[in-house]
This record gives sequence, structure tokens and C-alpha cells, in this order.
Amino acid sequence: MRLATFSAKADGRPRLGIVTDAGVIALSELPDAPATMIDLIAEWPDWQAAVEALTYRAPTHQLEDVILHAPVPRPGKIMGIGLNYADHVAEATIEAPKEQLWFSKQATSVNDPYGALQLPEVSSALDYEGELVFVVGRRIRHATREEAKAAIFGFCCGNDVTVRDWQFKTSQFTLGKSFDTHAPFGPWIVTSDVLDPHALGIRTLVNGEQRQASNTRYLIYDCYDQIVHLSQAMTLEPGDVIFTGTPGGIGSAMRPQRWLAAGDVVRVEIDGIGMIENVVRPE
Amino acid sequence: MRLATFSAKADGRPRLGIVTDAGVIALSELPDAPATMIDLIAEWPDWQAAVEALTYRAPTHQLEDVILHAPVPRPGKIMGIGLNYADHVAEATIEAPKEQLWFSKQATSVNDPYGALQLPEVSSALDYEGELVFVVGRRIRHATREEAKAAIFGFCCGNDVTVRDWQFKTSQFTLGKSFDTHAPFGPWIVTSDVLDPHALGIRTLVNGEQRQASNTRYLIYDCYDQIVHLSQAMTLEPGDVIFTGTPGGIGSAMRPQRWLAAGDVVRVEIDGIGMIENVVRPE
Repeated sequence: MRLATFSAKADGRPRLGIVTDAGVIALSELPDAPATMIDLIAEWPDWQAAVEALTYRAPTHQLEDVILHAPVPRPGKIMGIGLNYADHVAEATIEAPKEQLWFSKQATSVNDPYGALQLPEVSSALDYEGELVFVVGRRIRHATREEAKAAIFGFCCGNDVTVRDWQFKTSQFTLGKSFDTHAPFGPWIVTSDVLDPHALGIRTLVNGEQRQASNTRYLIYDCYDQIVHLSQAMTLEPGDVIFTGTPGGIGSAMRPQRWLAAGDVVRVEIDGIGMIENVVRPE
Repeated sequence: MRLATFSAKADGRPRLGIVTDAGVIALSELPDAPATMIDLIAEWPDWQAAVEALTYRAPTHQLEDVILHAPVPRPGKIMGIGLNYADHVAEATIEAPKEQLWFSKQATSVNDPYGALQLPEVSSALDYEGELVFVVGRRIRHATREEAKAAIFGFCCGNDVTVRDWQFKTSQFTLGKSFDTHAPFGPWIVTSDVLDPHALGIRTLVNGEQRQASNTRYLIYDCYDQIVHLSQAMTLEPGDVIFTGTPGGIGSAMRPQRWLAAGDVVRVEIDGIGMIENVVRPE
């Protein structure tokens, strides 16, 4: 199932919906349905059957009449893992970590799947990182691998947009990863019951030119490893968003380096999920 | 004025209050008052006069009958700056940064001012960092120093509790800074109209023994510098929480190193604000 946060172009009010081949079915068709994706995920065992039944209804909206938003507009946290594909480790200028290497992005970095990316005033070293993203489905701490698997609600396409010079101004990546609009993801959540996350082709294109092409089977630490490790330190909660790492092909590793410029269109596609596409605009 | 998030021991329901020398005055005395600190801060221009008038009322609760919670229980973000006092830079084993060095803590790290700190299952290298904390008062991006000053809502005592071995497992501090319960702050917010944040004695005591003693005048980057820098990258929002750095005297810099153990009581005091005190308990 594909679950989205959307607004009708006519009224702009965010709501939840199911996306089918025929269109969008608003969850407000269900009496007392949750109003936000985090609430829906947290209450999923209570709603799953009713939501599944709703998928057979006629759409309430056509896809072209809605704006798709980030499926979780205000995640409690957004964590990202670095250097998690071998070809990206090889192209990076920093040493391969011996353990999972984590940083965070901020709630203010969230962007719609087709929203504009800010080209910052303070940098021109703007770069893309196409990534599989997963959304946490339940509160969990000290997860086993089996528990980790069960704790994933679903998957999205994501772009871990990075201001490369700010990433390396100090030892800490955080600020370079946390600019406004630099965490677009979506276009919806594909629920985990219908997808093997570790056998998906993933591609990033800039103005139609393929820059990254890999498969999630090459993740060094897979999604379940990531939850096991993170949850040793912190409680993961419904709606937390995890960026799972980018394959080789980033702009800063090309010679000459190729930064994103105003007007560029960056597309991240993942088989079985869909695609997000963001145009670069001056801040 | 001192503003707190508290619950009555009798009912456990979180609410907002003013803390005076006579006790706590619940903000629910005001019709339609905001229910959360983030809402109160966001709507502060509309509420300030009414809240100030309320301070002259008799308390609705005695301080001993309430539990004080983190003033902002779910901040949109929690940012921390590293190596921001010269004596701490000298004791640290890493090179002094040429620019402000930022990491983040997570909403799940928040703890009450007198809550228990988890001694993690996965580490015994638990350390304290007593810090001045400020709470952002308004949405702001690309702040000037003057705008930065006006954007601070108020100040708290904080402990940037750190799992030292996890901080240095990889190049990124994030996980070692993000364990559950490791961001206690409070005990209330002292509003910025009554406090010069850059002339405050700050002390950390473990079981009554003074470990850190400094003054916020020794901050390398002061609170306003921090907002100017952060807001070049990200929008700061009402209720965002900023840990401003720790002075010298951390346990990991002592010889031999002294880690926090179960039963230890860590107290962070700041002149003009108050103190927080957290006991260490096995997870």
C-alpha cells in the first residue's frame, strides 16, 4: 500500500490518503481517522484493516489535483548514515568507518517530494545523495534483527542533500546536512509488507543525466542492522525517518566537481517505490 | 519570570506555570491559555502582558507538590556546540575547531530537571557536561547579532550528558550525544528580559564534589554568535533548544578518568537560573 500526506490544490489543507493506480483516496472517508501520519503509524494495528478495505473504493482526488507533501511532515528525528555503499566509500575523501557512522538532519530540513531545494546564500557547493529512506513503525529500543524488521513501517525515496563545504568545515557533518529544504522524501510511504528493501534498483539523475545507479543489495549495513545499532542508544519512535546511505556518483567526487546550480532538476528513483524530483532555486 | 512545564504529583497531567518565590501559578488560570510551552513561546507577544499580570496572584500549587518537567518536553530540534570554553578545548584530546562545531541531540534524549539519567547497557563511559542552555523564541533565519539577541526566549541549566566511547567510535559525535535521558534541562526557563546570559557563574558537582566551575563570560562563541551561525543554515523555531558548550573539568579529562556510576548525583547550577540534579540509574 502507498500512503501519502497530501493537500488538494483547491484548499491546501494537509491530509492523509492512500495512493492507488486510479488516484488518491482520502483517509477522512473513515470516521475518526487519524489526522497525521505519525498518529496513523502509531495507531496502525487499530487502523490497518479499515485502511486496507478503503483501497477498493473510488478515488476522492485525482493525482494531478493534489500536492504531495513529505509523508511525515515533522518527524521526531531524522537520522542519516554515512559511507554505507562500498563504491561511495571508495570515492569519498575520508577514511572508511569501522562502525556505523551516524549524523542527523533536522525537522526544518524536511521538504516535499516535488518541492524546491534551496541553493544556499552561504555556499555554492550543493550536492545530491539519492537514498532509500525508511519510516519507523513502532517505539523500539535494543532491537534484535527480527524486531528491527518488524519495526519498519515502510519505505520512501530520499535525497540527503548536502552542503559539501559546510559538511567539512569542522569534524562534524551536522550543519552541512541540516540546511532548510535539504531532506526531501516521498513521494509516499510504500508499506513494508509489499517490499523487500534490500533488492531495489536506485538511481539519481540531474537534468536527465544519470549520476548514481546502484542497488540496495549493496548497502554495507542494511536497514535492520541500522535499527539494531541506533536502538542501542536511543528509542526509535513511530514516524522517525532514517536515510540509509548513498551509493557512488556524488557531484563532489566527479573531476571536475559538479555542484548543483539554480534550475537543475534532481530526480531520485527507486524500483518499487517511485521517484522524487526537486528543482534547485536560489534561497 | 520563571516559566515551567510541571505536573501536580496528584494527577500527573503536564501543564504550564509561572514559578515565583511563593509557589507555582498554573497558566490555566488564564482563559484559553496555550497548553504547551512551544505554543506559549510562539504566541508570546499575545500572552506576555496577561502572564506577567498573573505573577501577582497567589500560587495554585506549592513547589513541593509538583514534578518539574523539561520546560520544552519535545523540542523541534536540540543543537549542541562543542569546544566552546578555552579550558575545555585545552583538556580535550581533539584539535580546536576554526569555526563553530555543532552536533545535535534528539527529542528522545530530553529529560526532566530532576529525572534519572540512564547508565547505558552498552557503555560505562558516562560523562557530564554542565552547560547554559537557551530556548529560541521566534522563527529566524540569517539573523544579525541584534536579531539573535531578540530571538532568545530564555535560559536554563543543562547537562549535555555524553557517552564518551560512543562519541568517538566514529568521527561523528551524534550517537554518543543522543542516548535516551541524556539531555536534562530546566528547572524552568528564566526569560531573557531579566538575565544577562554572558556573566553567569556555572558549576557542576558530582555527589557534592565540584568538578566544573566557570563563568559564561568565557564562552568562545556567545549565545548571539551561535544563533547568527546556525541560522545561516537552518530556520530556528520557537522552542528549539541550544546547548551552549561546557567548561573544563569533564570526567574523561581527569587522570585517572572518572566516569559516572549508578547512584551518582550530578548537579548543574547557574547563577540567576537555579539548578538541575539528576541521579544515575542503570538502564
